[in-house]
Amino acid sequence: MKLLFPLMAIVLEASMIILFGFFVKYETEQNAIQPLNNTNTTKVDRSLELHPLFQDVHVMIFVGIGFLMTFLKKYGFSSVGINLLIAALGLQWGTFIQGIVHHHGQTIYIGIKNMINADFSTATVLISFGAVLGKISPAQMLIMTIIEITVFAGNEYVVGEIFKASDIGASMTIHAFGAYFGLAVAGVLYRPGLRWGHEKEESVYHSDLFAMIGTLFLWIFWPSFNSAIAETTEQQYTAIVNTYFSLVACVLTAYAFSSFVGKRGKLDMVHIQNATLAGGVAVGTCADMEIHPYGAMIIGGIAGIVSVLGFKFLTPCLTEKLRIHDTCGVHNLHGLPGVIGGLASIVAIVLGASKGSSMVMQAAALGSSIGTAIVGGLITGLILRFIVRVQPSTEFFFDDSVYWEVPTGKEVDDE
Amino acid sequence: MKLLFPLMAIVLEASMIILFGFFVKYETEQNAIQPLNNTNTTKVDRSLELHPLFQDVHVMIFVGIGFLMTFLKKYGFSSVGINLLIAALGLQWGTFIQGIVHHHGQTIYIGIKNMINADFSTATVLISFGAVLGKISPAQMLIMTIIEITVFAGNEYVVGEIFKASDIGASMTIHAFGAYFGLAVAGVLYRPGLRWGHEKEESVYHSDLFAMIGTLFLWIFWPSFNSAIAETTEQQYTAIVNTYFSLVACVLTAYAFSSFVGKRGKLDMVHIQNATLAGGVAVGTCADMEIHPYGAMIIGGIAGIVSVLGFKFLTPCLTEKLRIHDTCGVHNLHGLPGVIGGLASIVAIVLGASKGSSMVMQAAALGSSIGTAIVGGLITGLILRFIVRVQPSTEFFFDDSVYWEVPTGKEVDDE
Amino acid sequence: MKLLFPLMAIVLEASMIILFGFFVKYETEQNAIQPLNNTNTTKVDRSLELHPLFQDVHVMIFVGIGFLMTFLKKYGFSSVGINLLIAALGLQWGTFIQGIVHHHGQTIYIGIKNMINADFSTATVLISFGAVLGKISPAQMLIMTIIEITVFAGNEYVVGEIFKASDIGASMTIHAFGAYFGLAVAGVLYRPGLRWGHEKEESVYHSDLFAMIGTLFLWIFWPSFNSAIAETTEQQYTAIVNTYFSLVACVLTAYAFSSFVGKRGKLDMVHIQNATLAGGVAVGTCADMEIHPYGAMIIGGIAGIVSVLGFKFLTPCLTEKLRIHDTCGVHNLHGLPGVIGGLASIVAIVLGASKGSSMVMQAAALGSSIGTAIVGGLITGLILRFIVRVQPSTEFFFDDSVYWEVPTGKEVDDE
Repeated sequence: MKLLFPLMAIVLEASMIILFGFFVKYETEQNAIQPLNNTNTTKVDRSLELHPLFQDVHVMIFVGIGFLMTFLKKYGFSSVGINLLIAALGLQWGTFIQGIVHHHGQTIYIGIKNMINADFSTATVLISFGAVLGKISPAQMLIMTIIEITVFAGNEYVVGEIFKASDIGASMTIHAFGAYFGLAVAGVLYRPGLRWGHEKEESVYHSDLFAMIGTLFLWIFWPSFNSAIAETTEQQYTAIVNTYFSLVACVLTAYAFSSFVGKRGKLDMVHIQNATLAGGVAVGTCADMEIHPYGAMIIGGIAGIVSVLGFKFLTPCLTEKLRIHDTCGVHNLHGLPGVIGGLASIVAIVLGASKGSSMVMQAAALGSSIGTAIVGGLITGLILRFIVRVQPSTEFFFDDSVYWEVPTGKEVDDE
Repeated sequence: MKLLFPLMAIVLEASMIILFGFFVKYETEQNAIQPLNNTNTTKVDRSLELHPLFQDVHVMIFVGIGFLMTFLKKYGFSSVGINLLIAALGLQWGTFIQGIVHHHGQTIYIGIKNMINADFSTATVLISFGAVLGKISPAQMLIMTIIEITVFAGNEYVVGEIFKASDIGASMTIHAFGAYFGLAVAGVLYRPGLRWGHEKEESVYHSDLFAMIGTLFLWIFWPSFNSAIAETTEQQYTAIVNTYFSLVACVLTAYAFSSFVGKRGKLDMVHIQNATLAGGVAVGTCADMEIHPYGAMIIGGIAGIVSVLGFKFLTPCLTEKLRIHDTCGVHNLHGLPGVIGGLASIVAIVLGASKGSSMVMQAAALGSSIGTAIVGGLITGLILRFIVRVQPSTEFFFDDSVYWEVPTGKEVDDE
Repeated sequence: MKLLFPLMAIVLEASMIILFGFFVKYETEQNAIQPLNNTNTTKVDRSLELHPLFQDVHVMIFVGIGFLMTFLKKYGFSSVGINLLIAALGLQWGTFIQGIVHHHGQTIYIGIKNMINADFSTATVLISFGAVLGKISPAQMLIMTIIEITVFAGNEYVVGEIFKASDIGASMTIHAFGAYFGLAVAGVLYRPGLRWGHEKEESVYHSDLFAMIGTLFLWIFWPSFNSAIAETTEQQYTAIVNTYFSLVACVLTAYAFSSFVGKRGKLDMVHIQNATLAGGVAVGTCADMEIHPYGAMIIGGIAGIVSVLGFKFLTPCLTEKLRIHDTCGVHNLHGLPGVIGGLASIVAIVLGASKGSSMVMQAAALGSSIGTAIVGGLITGLILRFIVRVQPSTEFFFDDSVYWEVPTGKEVDDE
């Protein structure tokens, strides 16, 4: 049993190396047959132009999402550590499976854009990880990473290539998908001990500050996330500006409503860590549309409000009524704002903000993303519950010491 | 009373959305009347070239300044959280008011450069926030943000457009202005309980490490701050090199003098967190002048020394004699080094390092920045003291629990 | 004695200013004699293209390495603070000495590339600092910085200009060199009290999380480190892709083997903080060679395994048998993976992955880097042991309070 995790990791890595040996080449090799390689040079130059955006997204995946989840007092090692592990696996598998799906099984020529897309596929798993954080083993997460990214790549293909829907910032294909996939898994893996709150499921002062490191890097680089795969510089510019203004508006409404619903007007760190980011999610789908800065601010403002209300009223309800326990509240940060994003794109199309997209196809994309996610999540949950049965027992939920050597020293010595 | 803050935040955000609806458009719309849009493409391309610099500055505002202020043991949530809140408001109001001032009330076409300038206007408020940290309520900070950015934009217009003074890294218009504005507010809001030190006004080991996150990101990206709005690539290059060498020299002298004035030669974290950055402030005004690397190092070296001496001898004196309590010591990091920056530019002009600027106008710019800041700060302080009277009582200074739900768990459980 | 450190720092900084006054100019001044300055414009433009890469490397040096070393419970101030101090000195001395060596004593014209190379020279000292962390005084570190960078520049010149060896990511000239230099110094400064473990040489929960900030920023930006000084865009592209895939593979094998060698399959934070980065080191030398993504993954995978095994079995052995105590385990993160990097480049040349390099010269470069490092480190150690005799006594090893005013408050007040 002790060997399950290391063996799985080694076998997965060996498989990746073999798959990459057969299928993955440098993009500089693509036209190597042709006599002139000036097309190569151009391609590499275009690739390198994306490098700063790639690095921004990379910071979001590893520092942003990783530290955002460190809010639990005894689960920081796993939050930031298992985040790194599954991201590293996801980047490899995502590169492969996205390449296979988009190029129909032919050789994959790697550019920086593939690396950004692999980061995106990984983000989806990390969002789902937030829903099951503290309740699942690293070995189970490896399995979930492989399955979820495969389903994600299929849905992304359907949304982008068949429906030809717009989703530049991936509100639907990443955020809503990741949230509902994770919630479905969490529902299957539910344990009664979660219902009235688990004693280890709480933060301490400094764990909340560590989580703010994650929040801030996500907040800062979100414009890069929503604009990284834009095809023209005008779209990229529009996506940056819209995301920026959606985020700033979202912060104001999130603070206002956190205080409004709080006891004696007090702010809640959970809202500030998460709901301030909902504007980035919700503006994603129409980030490259001409919704005007004030339109982006309206979307962001609404997302901030909905997200706070979700944390306050919906999350407890989900746990108690539907037996779905959502550790990080991904439904409020990614689920609801992702749905808002899809709906906003429909409104934007009605109002004439986008020429290339169709209302029906946007609706189909939203339906496909949520539907595929729920079905995929349920199946994954069943696999983890009945086949890869290495979940920790409920008393060791939210506890690093099951999987890590944890130092026993106190923060401050009394000498 | 509990509703004051959320209502203010909502009303402010609604006002921003309305103002943006009337006044703010994409820069791609600027020449939409003209048949050819190749000028648009060029403009957007120039805008996107600034994107990496914008992101660097953005990291400084949110992570840099936010975490720099987390050194207090019980005020980390407010430091990093209220920093985010007022920055989000400031970015919107700064975009609007700077646009109105510079374009005389006409439509504002948003580019990345506007976003950088909005970050700059926000930095000014955040510097002042450092002077009143722990002694002022979030609702008061919202008011102060609106007033201060308005006054800032006015002074910036006078310095840049009327005096035509050089201040690329904004030693005078941001740093000195922000510091003296904040000190004036702090003076008006002074309470006798601050005189001999407040029991909560201290750090713990890990809060000092969190603050170093802020210091380091500020230090690393300062060359981007000082060069972001350069007009030519040569000026940008010069500003990067000068800032870099000023900062490295400043570190050495700050360490030397921290040890020199310390008990038994010990270093003081307050000096290291702050005085190591004074070189970035002091070289700001002449960052794009041909002061040579060694000239930049002399400026940085002096700034490091002055800043440490300010913390050691001047700050206690300000509190006890002038009844001005400066929580973060912004006078030592931004005030004095900002003045050094203005004076250095005058010396540089005398020595022929700059062709385009005049000694008299630099002196006028320095005087205008400090004078406007003090008058604006005094008025703001009076408004906060007598009109928006929602300051916490002295015993709850430097205490998150007034405005936040604070977790009660200990860092380490004894099981 | 109390005055030794501040006087050294002031004298060093004054010397730097004098040296820069005589030898260092802007690169825009280089062709100022020529009538047309369009070559200047081009040079500055090329310089600014490197700016984002420079910033990435800069984050690695100050936040990455600085926080990676904060894992010790009572040595965080020194780790991140002395890191900043010696980096600031190293950047100045490295700029000067690298310029002198490469340009044979003529005027040095500063561009962003010089600043990247200065960061590299500094990285070498910071690696060595990891080996002696907690056992050496700031004054001694200033001396070590000056000596080590001088020796480093000499070896770098021999490897690059005389052997004409390939080492784009500097596995040999930075990582192996820095590790063996530091180990040699640590060997000379050994104290018997280190043999069976020092009571202060341990982490607490939050210090391990601070260290993960360092790990993640190093991990994220390593592709920039390995590609920053590439001469063509194709090489830069190849170095980015290879480093990225080496790192992801390394994470999987490091986790697998950490669990494999751990008690009851538990992961060890020391391995995760360090061994996940070994892939970046090991792929450095052949990062720009056509080793294919799967080749990079094999190198990274091996490095992750070797690094974990090194921490588990070799480090205790080095301390007990060879009397070399390696605080951060730099031998496992930089030493062994650096050697793997050199050997991998020889294998890559045998397999035809590189045209420009020769097996013999790569072997000579590896030998020269290790040999020079050991000799240089031994001499430096002897100087520190017998001439600059300001080492702390063993009981104050790994203790900030010798050099810093440390706050006495507890993390959580019990009120």
